[in-house]
Amino acid sequence: MTTIDATATGPATSTAPVTAEVRDGIGVLTLDRPAQRNPLSVATMTTFTGLLREVAASEVRAIVVRAAGPAFSAGHDLREMVGRTVEDEREVFAVCTEMMAAVQEVPQPVIAAVQGTAVAAGCQLVATCDLAVAASTAVFGTPGVRIGLFCSTPMVAVSRAIGRKRALQLLLTGEVIDAATAADWGLVNEVVAPDEVDARAFALAHQIAGASPLTLRIGKQAFYRQIDLPQAQAYEEMREIMATNAVTCDAQEGMQAFLDKRRPTWQGR
Amino acid sequence: MTTIDATATGPATSTAPVTAEVRDGIGVLTLDRPAQRNPLSVATMTTFTGLLREVAASEVRAIVVRAAGPAFSAGHDLREMVGRTVEDEREVFAVCTEMMAAVQEVPQPVIAAVQGTAVAAGCQLVATCDLAVAASTAVFGTPGVRIGLFCSTPMVAVSRAIGRKRALQLLLTGEVIDAATAADWGLVNEVVAPDEVDARAFALAHQIAGASPLTLRIGKQAFYRQIDLPQAQAYEEMREIMATNAVTCDAQEGMQAFLDKRRPTWQGR
Amino acid sequence: MTTIDATATGPATSTAPVTAEVRDGIGVLTLDRPAQRNPLSVATMTTFTGLLREVAASEVRAIVVRAAGPAFSAGHDLREMVGRTVEDEREVFAVCTEMMAAVQEVPQPVIAAVQGTAVAAGCQLVATCDLAVAASTAVFGTPGVRIGLFCSTPMVAVSRAIGRKRALQLLLTGEVIDAATAADWGLVNEVVAPDEVDARAFALAHQIAGASPLTLRIGKQAFYRQIDLPQAQAYEEMREIMATNAVTCDAQEGMQAFLDKRRPTWQGR
Repeated sequence: MTTIDATATGPATSTAPVTAEVRDGIGVLTLDRPAQRNPLSVATMTTFTGLLREVAASEVRAIVVRAAGPAFSAGHDLREMVGRTVEDEREVFAVCTEMMAAVQEVPQPVIAAVQGTAVAAGCQLVATCDLAVAASTAVFGTPGVRIGLFCSTPMVAVSRAIGRKRALQLLLTGEVIDAATAADWGLVNEVVAPDEVDARAFALAHQIAGASPLTLRIGKQAFYRQIDLPQAQAYEEMREIMATNAVTCDAQEGMQAFLDKRRPTWQGR
Repeated sequence: MTTIDATATGPATSTAPVTAEVRDGIGVLTLDRPAQRNPLSVATMTTFTGLLREVAASEVRAIVVRAAGPAFSAGHDLREMVGRTVEDEREVFAVCTEMMAAVQEVPQPVIAAVQGTAVAAGCQLVATCDLAVAASTAVFGTPGVRIGLFCSTPMVAVSRAIGRKRALQLLLTGEVIDAATAADWGLVNEVVAPDEVDARAFALAHQIAGASPLTLRIGKQAFYRQIDLPQAQAYEEMREIMATNAVTCDAQEGMQAFLDKRRPTWQGR
Repeated sequence: MTTIDATATGPATSTAPVTAEVRDGIGVLTLDRPAQRNPLSVATMTTFTGLLREVAASEVRAIVVRAAGPAFSAGHDLREMVGRTVEDEREVFAVCTEMMAAVQEVPQPVIAAVQGTAVAAGCQLVATCDLAVAASTAVFGTPGVRIGLFCSTPMVAVSRAIGRKRALQLLLTGEVIDAATAADWGLVNEVVAPDEVDARAFALAHQIAGASPLTLRIGKQAFYRQIDLPQAQAYEEMREIMATNAVTCDAQEGMQAFLDKRRPTWQGR
């Protein structure tokens, strides 16, 4: 399988706002409105969520989220937010929240490959992905305050990634930070040369894809389950999850292979 | 308007422990007991909270908290904590907690301009302000452990700003860190030369003051509302806040101005 | 007193998996299975927890956790996790969670002296200690994913120490980070030359031991009590803890000594 049948969300032509494919066992979603700086319109977000779930339901072991053109994403499409009712606006943020939730709900690790500007909901998407690789030329920010629309949903993800003072700096001033600062603050994991972003994201995806899919599925779900809990309660839940993980075929195989100094063979899904 | 009538909290003479003024649309509170290293006595904290609320009720769009003399603040006034009843001690921490809450409750962004030592409740105040600019010569710490009084209320703000291991380092050893370390750890946003602290804090205040006051009010309140919530619940609340923000006159004007490539004109308060 | 009677947990011979002693007022626990890279077997963890509580019940004012040999700890003992029932696995994680809880429950500060590799539950132990000093040659990670057993209990401590993106990087890739990176991310407090780890950990312990034991006890317990609470609730609890701390003999003595510019004499325990 090398392409995703996007019938449910419209034909996978070059006019689709998001494209999906499978490259060598890795799912790839590409934001593909380069001329418009990849706005997260309701149609784009709906398509993205649908394709993401479709890709995740296939055999892929990791997913890369990338974008075409000079910008990763400039955030929501302002043209569909001017002159609208509050119900229309609610739809934008409902669809956006569902998209962000889907990124963390799919069982495979999701890696953002950020080749350019990622601001507002675009920055939120980077903060939401499990891992992120950025071009040294990429910039990040939550500039909504400058157009009267505070980045209140982006800040949920961004403030949880970079902490209070730094999140407020981005939110209140609307300034952007460069990729090195984003890495220093923990918003992205690595910074590479602009022409190496895709290659590095795929290398990371392939490295992760060597692990048991069952283990990755258990682990990613467990991570988000525990992260917001008080510590004692988190341990209570993780103890049981880890004990049941330990009796799965793949953990038994993995531990035995380690003791035998051989490579494991995964069976779980 | 260039000064605040501090009648309610005492005359605004040079003997007041805190002074307030408005400079070019920016509120300014100055801790003004330089010879005593600006102790946060009950009187000082009560005055500070009253003046802060008074300034915040005026037309100012941002507030700078600064201090006179070589120290920003050395924390509580130990002279009013020795030989007292537990009720007296409770008053100190009740008044202190109310002051810290007020900093995050006022609708305008509050920027600390830290020109010198900020320890114990002084460090707490820096951690509590929305943003902080520090002189390269400033130092920060929670040294209460050295005088038998663990910095248990300061640690609420400090541990949320800098994380567990680093907070425990300051709390258990009582050591101070320099400004560069404070910036590296996310306790302050920027470090500048000592003679540039005020200018930089005001420049930041003026930059922020260019935004819609209504948007800043919505955004700051939303930030503190969401920061301690589990992520899913935070999104639930922020979705609605951002949707209603989007239909305000200032967001509509800001988005339209952006699409028209012109400067917006804010109306909201 | 210079050694701990480990009768309750077996004789304190060189064959014990953990040894305990008291050096100059500082408790010292040493993981002592160097040839096996100090696996955290059920027996080792049970012994560790028992000795830790025993040492903590003595007059020591700080505790150092160190390890013999080239590795700090490579995590659980896989040999007792292969071919077992889920009840056996549950025991491993129950005993492990109890050990980690004990580190944060004992009243004295616990300092990890990390001379070598600390991975999986070994990394969890470092993240769990109040403070950590690492050799420049030490490495840290949560590589369970590579053997099919996601580090779900280690991630409770690790993700709370280093944040989301960095925790997911360690968890999903299984890669290790060096000591400098661990310090940059807040997993350890300091990095020193390999032959200085013990000396630096003891120096830190002695520095902390100069404080009132009563104050340290109040403060450490308060820290973990407030860290997971919403801010307003944390202040509610810490206000009362700090007010009652202030009327203890040691706080009164400490404050008065500070005002008198003399050294305090502690009485509390």
